[in-house]
Amino acid sequence: MAFKFANRMDGVKASTIREVLKLTERPEVISFGGGMPAAEFFPIEEMKEVTSKVLDEDGQLALQYGSTDGYLPLREKVVKRLGRVGIKGITADNILLTSGSQQGLDFCGKIFVNPGDLVVCESPSYLGALNAFKAYECQFADIPMDDQGIIMTELEETLRNNAKVKFIYVIPDFQNPSGRTWSLERRKQLVEMANRYDAVIIEDSPYYELRYEGEPQPAIKSFDTQNRVVYLGTFSKTLAPGMRLGWICAGEEILGKFNLVKQGADLQVNSLTQRQVNKYMEMYDLDARIEYLIGVYRKRRAVMIEQMEKCLPKEVKISVPQGGLFVWLEFPEHINTTELMKKALEKNVAFIPGDPFYPNGGGQNSARFSFSAIPEERIIEGITRLGQAVKEIL
Amino acid sequence: MAFKFANRMDGVKASTIREVLKLTERPEVISFGGGMPAAEFFPIEEMKEVTSKVLDEDGQLALQYGSTDGYLPLREKVVKRLGRVGIKGITADNILLTSGSQQGLDFCGKIFVNPGDLVVCESPSYLGALNAFKAYECQFADIPMDDQGIIMTELEETLRNNAKVKFIYVIPDFQNPSGRTWSLERRKQLVEMANRYDAVIIEDSPYYELRYEGEPQPAIKSFDTQNRVVYLGTFSKTLAPGMRLGWICAGEEILGKFNLVKQGADLQVNSLTQRQVNKYMEMYDLDARIEYLIGVYRKRRAVMIEQMEKCLPKEVKISVPQGGLFVWLEFPEHINTTELMKKALEKNVAFIPGDPFYPNGGGQNSARFSFSAIPEERIIEGITRLGQAVKEIL
Repeated sequence: MAFKFANRMDGVKASTIREVLKLTERPEVISFGGGMPAAEFFPIEEMKEVTSKVLDEDGQLALQYGSTDGYLPLREKVVKRLGRVGIKGITADNILLTSGSQQGLDFCGKIFVNPGDLVVCESPSYLGALNAFKAYECQFADIPMDDQGIIMTELEETLRNNAKVKFIYVIPDFQNPSGRTWSLERRKQLVEMANRYDAVIIEDSPYYELRYEGEPQPAIKSFDTQNRVVYLGTFSKTLAPGMRLGWICAGEEILGKFNLVKQGADLQVNSLTQRQVNKYMEMYDLDARIEYLIGVYRKRRAVMIEQMEKCLPKEVKISVPQGGLFVWLEFPEHINTTELMKKALEKNVAFIPGDPFYPNGGGQNSARFSFSAIPEERIIEGITRLGQAVKEIL
Repeated sequence: MAFKFANRMDGVKASTIREVLKLTERPEVISFGGGMPAAEFFPIEEMKEVTSKVLDEDGQLALQYGSTDGYLPLREKVVKRLGRVGIKGITADNILLTSGSQQGLDFCGKIFVNPGDLVVCESPSYLGALNAFKAYECQFADIPMDDQGIIMTELEETLRNNAKVKFIYVIPDFQNPSGRTWSLERRKQLVEMANRYDAVIIEDSPYYELRYEGEPQPAIKSFDTQNRVVYLGTFSKTLAPGMRLGWICAGEEILGKFNLVKQGADLQVNSLTQRQVNKYMEMYDLDARIEYLIGVYRKRRAVMIEQMEKCLPKEVKISVPQGGLFVWLEFPEHINTTELMKKALEKNVAFIPGDPFYPNGGGQNSARFSFSAIPEERIIEGITRLGQAVKEIL
C-alpha cells in the first residue's frame, strides 16, 4: 500500500534524540542523552497527597471537561511567577495551559507558518522545536551565536533580506543544546530589532529557574511593549515532565489564536493534572523544591565538567552552562561525533551528536551531554569511558 | 498591531459548542448543550485508590518522560477491547495513545490533508472534527445519510469525480450529532468502496460502548483488509473526559506517521494518566461501570424522548438514538433553531443549533440535545420550557 500523505509529512522526521533514547534503555548504558530531570527527587508522596485532596474537594470537576484556556487558579499562579522574570501587566487571560511547552512550539508553527516561510533560530537550536516547525513546511535561517546570544548584525541582515520571516525562535537561558545564556544587552537589542522589522519573537524558557551561578536575567518578554513576544514555560523541569503541563503567555490577539488552535488540537489540558499542580503549589513550597534541585544539579554539572577536563583532549571545547541541563562539547573539526557515538555505545555510554541541532547542516564535531539525571559516580564512570572512546578514534 | 498569521488560521473558528457552553455556565440554566458524561458517577474514590497505587509502585516512571506511543500494558488492554468490536490481528504496535480522540482528529488532518484537498464526511457531522480538519485548509463534501448510514450512490459519485479526496470521515455508532447508527451492510459497502477508490477511512467511535438497545455492530475497521481504516477511540465517555485519554488504531505505515506527529505535537500523553487508567482497569471492572452508565443514560434518554413527544409539535422529527449521548431534532423548515435558541435561553434552557454541523451550510431547522449529564426531573423541566419557547416562536 502507498498512502497519499500530506506534503508536510515529507519534512517530518523522527527525533534523533528519541531514537538514541530507545537504544540506551538497557540498564548497563550510561546515557547522557535525554534532558531528563532526576527521577529520584520527584515529589511522589506529595503527588499522592495532592491527588487525594483534589479528588476529595473537587473530584467531579477534576474528571470532567473544562475550559480550553485552563484552570483559573493555576493560570493566576503562573502570572505571579512570571512577575519574577520581569513580565508585568499581564493577567490570567494572557495565559493558556498546554501539554508541555512542546505543544506551544507546535502551535507556533501552526499559527504563524505558511509553507516556504522563514523561521529564524539560533545556531544550534532545540531539535524538538525545529521538528515541530518543520511540519508546517518552513525554511530555517540559523544565526550564529557568541557567548552573549545571537550575533545581532547577522540577524539584522537576515531580517532585512527576507520578507518571509515569521518569527525569531530563541531559548535565552541555558540553551538547549549549547547551554548558552543571553546577556541583558542582547535581550533588549532583540526586542528593539523585532519591533523595527515587525517580527514575532518566540521565547522558549524551560530551564529558567535552574540557575547554578551568576545573576538571573529578565525575560526577553519583559522588554516587550508591542505584544510581539510569545513566552513558553513549563513545569516539566521543576516538577515532573511526565505530567505534561506547560503554558503560553502572550498578548490578547495572539493568545486568541492559540486558544482556537488548542480547541481543535485536544480541547484542553487534563483537568486533573491542572488541579494537581495547582494544589501542589498551594500545599508545598515549589521554590524550596527548585532550590534543592539546583543543589543536586549544580554538583552533577561540576562533576561532569571536572571529569571532562580530566579525560578529554585539551582541544575539546567544553562550554560550561550557568544553569539548565546541558553541557555542549565542540571537538576538533576532524572528529565526527556520530562516529564517536558508535564507539561510545560499544562502551555503553551515550550522548546526542550535535549535527541534528543545526537545521541547515554543520556541527558534525559537536555533542550534547545532559548531567541532570545521572548520579555523580555514574557521571565519572561514563565520562571516563567517553575519554577512552575519544582516544580510540583519534 | 496586525500580526501576520498563517493562511490556515482564516479557517479556524471558535467552536459554537464551546461558545454556547460558556453562556450556559450559570446554574439556573438547564443545558442540553455539551456532550458531557454524568459527573456524579465519575469513579472519584477509585481514582484516588489507583493513583496512590501507581505512585507507590511506579512513581518515578509515572512522573518521568515516557515513550511516544504510550504505556505498553495499557496499549495491550486497548487491543483486547478492540477484539470485541471485531478488530482482530492487531498488536500493541498498532496503537498510539492520544490526548483524547480529538487529538487523533487533529492528527488526521495533519497527516493527510494538503490545502484544497477534499474531506468526505457525513451530513451532518461532528463539529470538533470539522474544525480540526479545517485548520489544514481542506474542503468538505458532506454526503446525505439515511437511517442506515451514508447513501452509497452519493458517496460513489463524489469519489468518482474527485481525485483530491483524502479520507472519508465517519462516526458509525450513535453519531454526533444525529444519533444515527450505520447498518452492517453499509459498513461493509463502505470498506469495499474505499478499496475501490483507494481512499482512507477515519472511523471515529467514542460512543460505541454506550448502547441502550439493539444489536452491536462490528467496527468498520473489522472489515479492513488493506490497512486503510484508522480507528479512533477514547476513555472520555466510559471513564472520565477530563483525563484526556484516547487512542488511534491503524496499520503500521499510517501509525508510523501518527507517531512522528505525536512527537512534534507534545511528545507523549501524560505518563501518570496512562498508568492511572491502566491500573483502574486492573483493579476495577470497567465493564460493570459501563453497564451502570448504560442504565442511567437509557433512562435519561427515555425521559427526554417522552417529554419531547409530549411538549413539541407533531411536525418536529425526533430521532431516537440506539446509544450515545444525543437526540437530534428536525423542526419544520421555517423554524430557525438559532432564533429558537435565543428564545430558549430567555427561559434558561440551552441546546446546540444544528447548522454548524453542516460544513457546507444547511440544517438551520435542526438541533442537538444531550441527555447524559442531566437528572431526569431537570430533563422534564428543560424540555417543558423548550416546548413553551417553540410555541412562542411559532
